[in-house]
Amino acid sequence: MSEGFLLHAIQLACDSVASGGGPFGAVVVEDGKVVAAGQNRVVPGCDPTAHAEIEAIRAACRAKGTYDLSHCELYASCEPCPMCLGAIHWARIGRLHYACTREDAAQAGFDDALLYRELALPATARSLRVSQALRDKGLEAFRAWESDADRVPY
Amino acid sequence: MSEGFLLHAIQLACDSVASGGGPFGAVVVEDGKVVAAGQNRVVPGCDPTAHAEIEAIRAACRAKGTYDLSHCELYASCEPCPMCLGAIHWARIGRLHYACTREDAAQAGFDDALLYRELALPATARSLRVSQALRDKGLEAFRAWESDADRVPY
Repeated sequence: MSEGFLLHAIQLACDSVASGGGPFGAVVVEDGKVVAAGQNRVVPGCDPTAHAEIEAIRAACRAKGTYDLSHCELYASCEPCPMCLGAIHWARIGRLHYACTREDAAQAGFDDALLYRELALPATARSLRVSQALRDKGLEAFRAWESDADRVPY
Repeated sequence: MSEGFLLHAIQLACDSVASGGGPFGAVVVEDGKVVAAGQNRVVPGCDPTAHAEIEAIRAACRAKGTYDLSHCELYASCEPCPMCLGAIHWARIGRLHYACTREDAAQAGFDDALLYRELALPATARSLRVSQALRDKGLEAFRAWESDADRVPY
């Protein structure tokens, strides 16, 4: 854990507010160096997925030319929401450091805690209405994948 | 629920394999029309967040010039992973339709089920190693947000 990288993420969060973004920042670090940084760009970028962690992960992958950040750590100004935890998982980042908590975010009007509660519920109990159909047809995509000799498993 | 839109998402999933992507597709629909489509681009795009649902949501937001897809529905070839469920939540999409299940995805080598299990664990029991520090410093970003008269809550 480096306090310097965490302070960097926090500074990005403060700067983000000044440029019209939400109060969140993050940096991806590898071998003691910042690979990429991200700030919340949901409103200015018209992108609900542009959380600081996702922006930092995407920028790090662009910089390194890979979708695999196994050797990297993520520093975030606030505890990541489940979407960003998912992105951390898919990027194979193994270490996360953060400053504020989901409760701090909720206090400031960002209800990550609601999403945590939603995801803990059985699918049928969530506020998101869900229906399923055409599974047999859908499986054709997986069959195409499995029979593709050029596929790159990830 | 429109089977036509779900078939569209499945076709995108099949086409994605042929162009080097993973076997997943999604479309965002509003008022009976496709607003945007997405395919899995993790490997060809070097982007671990480029799941079909996220690609479709980002494209729909670009097309509509907003981060709010409250009036839209999402059709996906497979049950979304927690990262994509988070994106659906933040985009305020209220209805989701899908074909294959997370178990079907796991069978094909995409272990969304593992991520669901991880997120259900207490933070200290997850494989992701986490540390927290500098909360007081981090709170300064939220104080900056709260005192910014121009902020756009979202």
